[in-house]
Amino acid sequence: MLLQNNTIVVRRPRVITLLTDFGTQDAYVGIMKGVIAGINPSATVIDICHSIPPQDTFSGAYLLSTSYKYFPEKTIHVAVVDPGVGSRRDIVCVETKDYFFLAPDNGLLSFIVHEERPKSIIRVTNSKYFLPSPSSTFHGRDVFAPVAAHLSLGVKPQQFGIRVNQLEQLDMPKPVQKKAGQVEGQIIYIDRFGNLITNITKEYLIKGAGGQKPEVRSKKPDAFEKTSKDKMLLKYDTIETTIGKKKIIGLSKTYIDAESGEPLVLIGSAGFLEVSINQGNAQKYFRVDRGNKIRVEMGAH
Amino acid sequence: MLLQNNTIVVRRPRVITLLTDFGTQDAYVGIMKGVIAGINPSATVIDICHSIPPQDTFSGAYLLSTSYKYFPEKTIHVAVVDPGVGSRRDIVCVETKDYFFLAPDNGLLSFIVHEERPKSIIRVTNSKYFLPSPSSTFHGRDVFAPVAAHLSLGVKPQQFGIRVNQLEQLDMPKPVQKKAGQVEGQIIYIDRFGNLITNITKEYLIKGAGGQKPEVRSKKPDAFEKTSKDKMLLKYDTIETTIGKKKIIGLSKTYIDAESGEPLVLIGSAGFLEVSINQGNAQKYFRVDRGNKIRVEMGAH
Amino acid sequence: MLLQNNTIVVRRPRVITLLTDFGTQDAYVGIMKGVIAGINPSATVIDICHSIPPQDTFSGAYLLSTSYKYFPEKTIHVAVVDPGVGSRRDIVCVETKDYFFLAPDNGLLSFIVHEERPKSIIRVTNSKYFLPSPSSTFHGRDVFAPVAAHLSLGVKPQQFGIRVNQLEQLDMPKPVQKKAGQVEGQIIYIDRFGNLITNITKEYLIKGAGGQKPEVRSKKPDAFEKTSKDKMLLKYDTIETTIGKKKIIGLSKTYIDAESGEPLVLIGSAGFLEVSINQGNAQKYFRVDRGNKIRVEMGAH
Repeated sequence: MLLQNNTIVVRRPRVITLLTDFGTQDAYVGIMKGVIAGINPSATVIDICHSIPPQDTFSGAYLLSTSYKYFPEKTIHVAVVDPGVGSRRDIVCVETKDYFFLAPDNGLLSFIVHEERPKSIIRVTNSKYFLPSPSSTFHGRDVFAPVAAHLSLGVKPQQFGIRVNQLEQLDMPKPVQKKAGQVEGQIIYIDRFGNLITNITKEYLIKGAGGQKPEVRSKKPDAFEKTSKDKMLLKYDTIETTIGKKKIIGLSKTYIDAESGEPLVLIGSAGFLEVSINQGNAQKYFRVDRGNKIRVEMGAH
Repeated sequence: MLLQNNTIVVRRPRVITLLTDFGTQDAYVGIMKGVIAGINPSATVIDICHSIPPQDTFSGAYLLSTSYKYFPEKTIHVAVVDPGVGSRRDIVCVETKDYFFLAPDNGLLSFIVHEERPKSIIRVTNSKYFLPSPSSTFHGRDVFAPVAAHLSLGVKPQQFGIRVNQLEQLDMPKPVQKKAGQVEGQIIYIDRFGNLITNITKEYLIKGAGGQKPEVRSKKPDAFEKTSKDKMLLKYDTIETTIGKKKIIGLSKTYIDAESGEPLVLIGSAGFLEVSINQGNAQKYFRVDRGNKIRVEMGAH
Repeated sequence: MLLQNNTIVVRRPRVITLLTDFGTQDAYVGIMKGVIAGINPSATVIDICHSIPPQDTFSGAYLLSTSYKYFPEKTIHVAVVDPGVGSRRDIVCVETKDYFFLAPDNGLLSFIVHEERPKSIIRVTNSKYFLPSPSSTFHGRDVFAPVAAHLSLGVKPQQFGIRVNQLEQLDMPKPVQKKAGQVEGQIIYIDRFGNLITNITKEYLIKGAGGQKPEVRSKKPDAFEKTSKDKMLLKYDTIETTIGKKKIIGLSKTYIDAESGEPLVLIGSAGFLEVSINQGNAQKYFRVDRGNKIRVEMGAH
């Protein structure tokens, strides 16, 4: 809150998100929040996820890319999955139209910079904004947290260091068109419910189907269906998904379009084709893991 | 904060609680908080629990019922354990004297409406308060979070939809009186410490004991005992609890009334009879699970 | 925010931290936050950790000691690892120059009072600041949360009870000097990454090396090295660590000073000698646990 010309100006509290592989069994995340609270007590800190498997930058990059855009403008997204902590890898501060990102330059921001054009990329080196005597093993506490807090107070990214031109990129495995109407993708993420999320996007399916939007027919229509502006036009039963030796016919709209315990395929909430079991766990059902192949045929019937 | 007639009115930040089966290994909970922060940056969001076993509405209903009343008045409790997401199940907004509840109408609010008389039950359908183009698989993000945030800004429940008259109910298994002074209950919840929480309430025990309040004698009296207005009058050693083939004599007041590693029975902090091991884990000790029977005899000695 | 002599005084929100063994699978932590929000809605509550193994006061004391000082001045640290809940053990409120601590008097504050001289130790007994009719099994909800919230509103520790003179102490196992230049320590904590944290501090190593500061040579120098005021002077390869039958030569600066999958020794972010595997898990690699011995020879080469 500021007093300006006798007018009270209440600043919206700035949001800082944290995504790390620190887990919650130790005090690492709490310590980062303590450092932030010491520098900007008004910042709102929100955990995106701390259960990224240790050093798994791909999962970190995936989860960040599916979540960042649901936060308010000017949110500062801090991502620390950092196997190279203390080494010559850079720490970067990326500003886009709506957001700030602070992360080691190891590919964590790969899938975001496809969607959000960076306005600037700064290599963070100005130790004025670090904790004194930063350690070589816990930059989350000594560098990321204080820099994020200063950013939330209005420090400009340029004050943290010098501009660089590019970022490390992870490969997002691309779906492969095997023949007309047949696509081979793979599982890129498995969530808590055992849902198998693939690299096949709705857009890819539409393109693969010759530009026609896939129509999705739900056996049990959604109460909210009328509100959706995003109906798909591909025929329900013209999609056939093969996972292992199992075939799943059709594209569902909700998890309960299949019988309880039965598999189904849908476009998940992040826009990727997803294999699920109604009320069950598809990972256990199919005994698959990240990287396993999934084949989709369109117009098969 | 508002300026009204030259007076500064500071509104208490409204509390929104979240209870889900989303776990913390993905970004689902963080995304909900991002949506809330975008609509009402001043809301205070508190996690009740996100580790409800997937689709286990009973555990969700139990935990919500043991926790909601410890939050400030006008708290908005959001519960999302929602196996029917995207189907015709309703989303309801329930207002009671002190609280608001937002949940799928699948029984999650069962144990609350026994205690809190609903002032109104609204079926939430007004997509004006949803995210645009809501998905069919993640209503936590697209419906629950934005509706809760708007509610915290002062939107009236009636604006979300129309009034309905009743809610889905889950069965809370009732204890059964086998014969005079003998009650058979079952384990309804097992907590992190392995404490076995049953469906036998203190009130039921008192009634079963003929209206006398049970007296609880602690071998190691509590420093705070004098502050308790809720002493029980049943004789300590007249209660005998049978679990499997094991008998436990007496009702304890604290976990350390038994020797280390030994079982005991007490009335837990939510008011239910509970079987525990001092410094141990009763679930592992007795090798039992939810649904297993427990028998209590009163006046046995 | 207060109005004093027509001046608006905005108070910094007070930080309350929580460290417990309550886990996150139940609602216990959320309930504590609800109680705090009901008494002081402006308090900022930060979780340090809730995954302390049940009743493991040593781990709780260790984690608290490595984190408390990263929080802002006047933070109220609440620690509840409390196997004796409801018994005659005391609850204490300790005030130091910069912080408040609220904990059962069972050794949880052991490692803090070595570093921070208590200004006062109060035995908390004044039930005016508890929830009405406190239970004997959940003092986190009924005593710790409300007392912490009142403290955050400015209630003085003396109002909670009477002064006492000393605190229960846990033993921190001390490293043992076996012969000149040879120290035997033990593993006191293992973190999420499987890093083996020992009781051998940097200071002890320096003393053992005859007052010379150990020099740490990193094969891959740290981008931030110039900012460190805390360089060590012991020769890199004059330290030899033995764990089980394995010897590790040298002291590293970062986890990536070893090849991927190879072991290394460094001084961790809390100041203790630590055995790690680059990109791996030292606990699994060495099949060790807390309490296992580690031997360090200095000047061995």
